[in-house]
Amino acid sequence: MERAAEPADSAVARVRESFARQGLMLHLGAELIAVTDGSVTIALRARPEVSQQHGFVHGGATSAIADSAGGYAALTRMPSGSEVLTVDFTLNLLAPASGQSVEAVASVVRSGRALTVCRLDAWSIDGGQRRHIATGQQTLIRVDR
Amino acid sequence: MERAAEPADSAVARVRESFARQGLMLHLGAELIAVTDGSVTIALRARPEVSQQHGFVHGGATSAIADSAGGYAALTRMPSGSEVLTVDFTLNLLAPASGQSVEAVASVVRSGRALTVCRLDAWSIDGGQRRHIATGQQTLIRVDR
Amino acid sequence: MERAAEPADSAVARVRESFARQGLMLHLGAELIAVTDGSVTIALRARPEVSQQHGFVHGGATSAIADSAGGYAALTRMPSGSEVLTVDFTLNLLAPASGQSVEAVASVVRSGRALTVCRLDAWSIDGGQRRHIATGQQTLIRVDR
Amino acid sequence: MERAAEPADSAVARVRESFARQGLMLHLGAELIAVTDGSVTIALRARPEVSQQHGFVHGGATSAIADSAGGYAALTRMPSGSEVLTVDFTLNLLAPASGQSVEAVASVVRSGRALTVCRLDAWSIDGGQRRHIATGQQTLIRVDR
Repeated sequence: MERAAEPADSAVARVRESFARQGLMLHLGAELIAVTDGSVTIALRARPEVSQQHGFVHGGATSAIADSAGGYAALTRMPSGSEVLTVDFTLNLLAPASGQSVEAVASVVRSGRALTVCRLDAWSIDGGQRRHIATGQQTLIRVDR
Repeated sequence: MERAAEPADSAVARVRESFARQGLMLHLGAELIAVTDGSVTIALRARPEVSQQHGFVHGGATSAIADSAGGYAALTRMPSGSEVLTVDFTLNLLAPASGQSVEAVASVVRSGRALTVCRLDAWSIDGGQRRHIATGQQTLIRVDR
Repeated sequence: MERAAEPADSAVARVRESFARQGLMLHLGAELIAVTDGSVTIALRARPEVSQQHGFVHGGATSAIADSAGGYAALTRMPSGSEVLTVDFTLNLLAPASGQSVEAVASVVRSGRALTVCRLDAWSIDGGQRRHIATGQQTLIRVDR
Repeated sequence: MERAAEPADSAVARVRESFARQGLMLHLGAELIAVTDGSVTIALRARPEVSQQHGFVHGGATSAIADSAGGYAALTRMPSGSEVLTVDFTLNLLAPASGQSVEAVASVVRSGRALTVCRLDAWSIDGGQRRHIATGQQTLIRVDR
């Protein structure tokens, strides 16, 4: 187990604690699946409450969990007492989100003093099959409380 | 009342009918506020179910209603029987979404045979005050069923 | 002539002086057409040196002048001694850049302490006809020397 | 030598032939470094003609070669007689482009019937050191002549 791949326990704890306070994530039914240093995975079960008009998971739901995943990936690189805000993000929707669930994975590409850039990717899980349904990137800024 | 500013009743009806089938919009509590030719407004009341960890409306909720508004703005320019899919979108979050509600307005910038480009903007409504909280753009593709 | 629409002479002078040092702008043949508070226009004459394979102005040339215009629009809002760097930008290419020249106009949407967001638009000029060929947005960060 | 990693000779030839007709690439001094199935690399030597005001390679020059690289990466997946146009692209500038040259690498993420999505990355080469200076994504559309 490499230190670089595992954030300090306190960072994981801060991510979990903050995630639990995001009313939207709870309301959507999103789950925090993995938190490692510089990378966070959030999953969302497909159900009518997160669907678009054809029954697939809504692109807005995918983008919401991707945005949160990116924020928390950035947060794993921040000292205690810092927060991050999304400055902007771009998402390409590559395919409809069919299947039982969607997984959004965010990974820090560059973490600077003020700004962090994350890569965002999402997959639909359909039976045993993973399909790449979205790819994007996000810029975040550190805010000290 | 100019014809150009008012889509055929059938386009408005199609937008309303499709919106009603978007489970996510219903679940978030989003409301279709206005539908005109090439422009759609969707509002979202601030409440814990759409919040981030500080109680503001989550950027993911703002982007979800902005994405839907853009899709429906594009749809007002499509003939009956056509659908649109979001290809990609970018959103800059300009300020925290404080206040009682958020309003996302999408307007068609260019509508071609295959592709439509929309401008996306969102405002928070705090008492009588409107604050520009997000600006973005979206590319959509027409799909014939 | 409103004060708000006219930046301090020093800001105009700083923009002009910095533009003159951008080797790329000179090499492309770009011209600084207008500098007002929060908005900058740069024009580029169509010629083989800035073309793509069909003879239109290359999207990369349009994006280069749009990026510079945005940087200078942001700079008009900065105190003397500050610089700006592009954090990221998005450009939608709406139509081929045919005609005699391309004009990129950047306008500040929001200017904060650290970050500035600009809207970017480009037009082709073909005879007396202006055509909207690109729309985008840009995030910039202030850097104090 | 796997077939999948090497496009048909005709695709390489079409890319090289089209690149040679891009006046902007010639004028910037850009070189087509590598063409494989779904991936293209273009390099640009740092010199005053492609600089910004501090002597680094201009972000607009980096974005121009990244845009061209993406267009040609998409073209390697197209049948003869098809062209591609950039629909939109986003670029995050991660670090100043110092050093002797910049290299832009574009890779196809998804290639559909109408649309192709590419990932764009750029590195500065400073002595033996490669630094990741930009990351982005691009949507392109196929056009049949």
